[in-house]
Amino acid sequence: MLKYKAPLRDMRFLIDEVFDYRAHYAGLANGGEATPETIAAILEGAAALCEEVLAPLNLPGDREGCHFSDGEVRAPAGFKEAYAQYAAGGWQGLPFPAEYGGQGLPVSVNVFKSDMMATANWSFNMYPGLSVGCINTILKFGTPAQKALYLPPLVSGAWTGTMCLTEPQCGTDLAQITTRAVPQPDGTYRITGTKMFISAGDHDLAANIIHIVLARLPDAPSGTRGISLFVVPKFLVGPDGATGARNGVMCGAIERKMGIHASPTALLNFEQAAGAMIAEPNKGLEAMFTFMNTARIGIAIQGVAHAEASFQGALPYAKERRSMRALSGKKDPEFPADALIWHPDVRRMLLTQKAIAEGGRAMIYGAAQMADKMFEAAAAGDQAAYDEFDGKLGFYTPILKGFLTELGLEAANLGMQVFGGHGYIHENGMEQIVRDARIATLYEGTTGIQALDLLGRKVLLGTRGKCVRDFTATMWRFSRRRLFAGGPIGRMARTLARRALQWNAMTTRIMLRARGDRESIGAASFDFLMYSGYVMMAHFWALQAARAAACVASGTGGESAAFYLAKIQTAEFYFERLLPRADAHRKGALASAGSVMRMDNDSFGFD
Amino acid sequence: MLKYKAPLRDMRFLIDEVFDYRAHYAGLANGGEATPETIAAILEGAAALCEEVLAPLNLPGDREGCHFSDGEVRAPAGFKEAYAQYAAGGWQGLPFPAEYGGQGLPVSVNVFKSDMMATANWSFNMYPGLSVGCINTILKFGTPAQKALYLPPLVSGAWTGTMCLTEPQCGTDLAQITTRAVPQPDGTYRITGTKMFISAGDHDLAANIIHIVLARLPDAPSGTRGISLFVVPKFLVGPDGATGARNGVMCGAIERKMGIHASPTALLNFEQAAGAMIAEPNKGLEAMFTFMNTARIGIAIQGVAHAEASFQGALPYAKERRSMRALSGKKDPEFPADALIWHPDVRRMLLTQKAIAEGGRAMIYGAAQMADKMFEAAAAGDQAAYDEFDGKLGFYTPILKGFLTELGLEAANLGMQVFGGHGYIHENGMEQIVRDARIATLYEGTTGIQALDLLGRKVLLGTRGKCVRDFTATMWRFSRRRLFAGGPIGRMARTLARRALQWNAMTTRIMLRARGDRESIGAASFDFLMYSGYVMMAHFWALQAARAAACVASGTGGESAAFYLAKIQTAEFYFERLLPRADAHRKGALASAGSVMRMDNDSFGFD
Repeated sequence: MLKYKAPLRDMRFLIDEVFDYRAHYAGLANGGEATPETIAAILEGAAALCEEVLAPLNLPGDREGCHFSDGEVRAPAGFKEAYAQYAAGGWQGLPFPAEYGGQGLPVSVNVFKSDMMATANWSFNMYPGLSVGCINTILKFGTPAQKALYLPPLVSGAWTGTMCLTEPQCGTDLAQITTRAVPQPDGTYRITGTKMFISAGDHDLAANIIHIVLARLPDAPSGTRGISLFVVPKFLVGPDGATGARNGVMCGAIERKMGIHASPTALLNFEQAAGAMIAEPNKGLEAMFTFMNTARIGIAIQGVAHAEASFQGALPYAKERRSMRALSGKKDPEFPADALIWHPDVRRMLLTQKAIAEGGRAMIYGAAQMADKMFEAAAAGDQAAYDEFDGKLGFYTPILKGFLTELGLEAANLGMQVFGGHGYIHENGMEQIVRDARIATLYEGTTGIQALDLLGRKVLLGTRGKCVRDFTATMWRFSRRRLFAGGPIGRMARTLARRALQWNAMTTRIMLRARGDRESIGAASFDFLMYSGYVMMAHFWALQAARAAACVASGTGGESAAFYLAKIQTAEFYFERLLPRADAHRKGALASAGSVMRMDNDSFGFD
Repeated sequence: MLKYKAPLRDMRFLIDEVFDYRAHYAGLANGGEATPETIAAILEGAAALCEEVLAPLNLPGDREGCHFSDGEVRAPAGFKEAYAQYAAGGWQGLPFPAEYGGQGLPVSVNVFKSDMMATANWSFNMYPGLSVGCINTILKFGTPAQKALYLPPLVSGAWTGTMCLTEPQCGTDLAQITTRAVPQPDGTYRITGTKMFISAGDHDLAANIIHIVLARLPDAPSGTRGISLFVVPKFLVGPDGATGARNGVMCGAIERKMGIHASPTALLNFEQAAGAMIAEPNKGLEAMFTFMNTARIGIAIQGVAHAEASFQGALPYAKERRSMRALSGKKDPEFPADALIWHPDVRRMLLTQKAIAEGGRAMIYGAAQMADKMFEAAAAGDQAAYDEFDGKLGFYTPILKGFLTELGLEAANLGMQVFGGHGYIHENGMEQIVRDARIATLYEGTTGIQALDLLGRKVLLGTRGKCVRDFTATMWRFSRRRLFAGGPIGRMARTLARRALQWNAMTTRIMLRARGDRESIGAASFDFLMYSGYVMMAHFWALQAARAAACVASGTGGESAAFYLAKIQTAEFYFERLLPRADAHRKGALASAGSVMRMDNDSFGFD
């Protein structure tokens, strides 16, 4: 069975060395608790939970799957006990206010924890993961009474939460929602409708489940401006917080899926379910979208997680399994064949995985500092600061979610490939990683939706290219000081400077074209997203390499010298072998819209 | 449930119009039987079998899987009856000599049949598919007595065959094989050892299973030059052909796999199993490799098949499912949202699938003519002609197998992506296609092995670049006559001419570098393979577009005008949006070997 080892060395490199989180926390209103000692304790404690409790349940959970009978879902063996341990450890409350039982830490600390949990056992991670959106929604939009009622058990992990958006006839297009909410004389509502694809929609890990539900009031306008938001508990909650009778929300089925078998994907039938409105009438979608950025970054973590998990599986196999001799002569002459890792193409696959996992982690840990500042501004009621950081994070979000989940899937597949035919066998664990990773480009907005969000909403409509100019200015500030440096850092800086200019020029061309042809946005969006991802990841690899080179140069490497050298070498690999893919995406983004639009709908297929 | 419709229009376009198979068959010694009427009857008959019998078993077969108990394997419900229908229809004998009960048709006819069977139900296709290698081996290397004994029931489909190569300690590296064959006084052998990953290694579809087994004689030299080939039946066969007692080969287990659940992957324990040597002692590997090209093209078909299946699933969904409005305004105003197919990014995904499926089919149908000529030369004992066509086919083989299975997997994933979250749900059938497609880049030589075969064996050692020069000369002959043409054909011709020069120049650079650094071959091989695949597919798309344009220009389009136009448009899409990926692969192939070799083996991971 695959083993998980938290990549603490890499995490500390990013936290302490690349992004200087100590200084970052020192400047945050809620950063005082995030002392180096606390961070160290959290990293070590989460690593132990993930390595010893969650990772060993991953393969058995996939094998067993969830159980459904008589409207009730039961998680695979061991999940309930593991969740109890998770809740007892206070892990759910890390980023939530102390007044509701949380630890009040910056949200980035939760990102570090999620990185490990996601890699150790993604299916498990989804149970508490879905609670986060629910908690954030109640925190921001709930009445004081709602907060007092729901938040303490959600923050402690005694209860979990869900987000109920999708219906059978619509997922992306929430304008088509038909679930109804009828006001009652006592000010509550009765919710009726069918929601599907509800992750952790029912299970036996927690005493209650709090559903956040999108529904329409009887007099609501059609479309997206007629959707309201409701809190609907599985078990009714008395004013004293005690759970009472079963509410009218029943699980009708769980889906049989390609992967994430240990995470139930529920069909929920709401029938006259009692609920309370949260946020303003008909403004439910806006409220829901408030936390879209953070939810999507939660899924971006999945991309990194599955790249890391697959890399951690493939690396020891490549060192142990022996096949053929190296092209340049025997490497392990005492054995009948050389280890796989000696073969250049196996190294290419391993390095691709490593570059994706560590490059993606750097992107997420960098973006997490903006999330910290966004939440800080929200807590302080500083709208201008909030808008600034929300905007910055909003530029990262579709790139992180769209690009990193696509590359996470590639990395997961490469790990299988290193195993050869043995990768296809269930017991070896590698194929599960691919099946689990596959959902990441689909839910929480497909890659195509992320691409439209990036190019259409964030770049064109939202900022007229300013968000690209801002990010490339950051790239330029980094690279201009190193343009004439020798060695790999100088080479990377020159490449980055060229890419910064190219990214801007490409964006301008697409903007000009979009004025005359709206379809050209959709035709360019996917390739624009992928181009942006490759160039952004190049920037974050250069940051890491420059930091590593500085440590080597100053002689502070010490026992980490090999680690720093590997960072520089992985960055070089990325620049030489992966970044060139950006060119094909640039050509795709700049191709005429006709390349996809000219064919008649009836001409795609002929009998 | 997904429906399968044989793409007969596309197949006929290739058979009749692009490759003029009528003239090709007229020039073949065994082509006389392949009259237009016979070909039409075979296409229609196979289409009916695939659409009505095999395709409906695909999803249920995946769901049920194979059963193993008491050393016996049972196929999923319906497979036995379907196989009986397949055998009764004489489908197994298409390409085999009439003297053993076959129809003596050119092997390309079998390729057309396999294209449909592979798409309708890949797992089913593997049972009779594995017999082909067994039959070909006995045909070429068997004694007259062995042929008389084994071939009639194998050719009729009453029995099936396997190829037993892999052992637990080795797959690719057959030098490590340890299975032993001990000669007996009566001239037979007793085989003892463990073989794994044996497709169709045991099942209940046929009365007997004939295993072709690689094993070592007691005095054999170590390594690949000490491996011999044996015929080992599941049930002993008397001199009269009657099956008798159970032989000492028992199925120990079947694998639990990511996909192809309806195809049993067996662990076979040989214990003093009676067998007969076939081919010369210690020359078993050479004999086995005789049919490597055709076996690998059999798997290349899988790439096309899963692209086609996923496209056939995604297209109707994209026309039926409605989500959001088109960027340029309502397209289906009578509905609450527009069909997915109006969205440019969905069209990009569908066109990518279509370009892969139809482009790959053209590559295979083109290569099949060389296979016909190779078999013709073998039957005539014309070694020079055999070597010529074997060499040509040998250049295509790793490209078809390696490149088309990688792209088949991409296309399968894109079909899931068109379905959004619904693609992840088992009942919708799209995720099965991805799971089934995933094995194709692993077995019959991983993509990495195909890449080494192409660059190391075929291009560098085998021909010193001549095979690339020959193929690019073909590209040049096609394009030079159209260099100054207007419209899409002229654009494609100019691109092809440039790529022909580029492919040669790149090959020369890699050859020069390989002299000083053997590892550089392995470092370049994967990207060289993918580059070659993209450029070769461009050639086959240009062939199709040129033919379609000629039909349109001559006014012979008639009711096929829309079909021809779609061909040209798909070719344009390929050139504009997919072919540019070749540039990144060129950069990868030309990057220094250091990009993958410089990292110390111990520096790939740090705790």
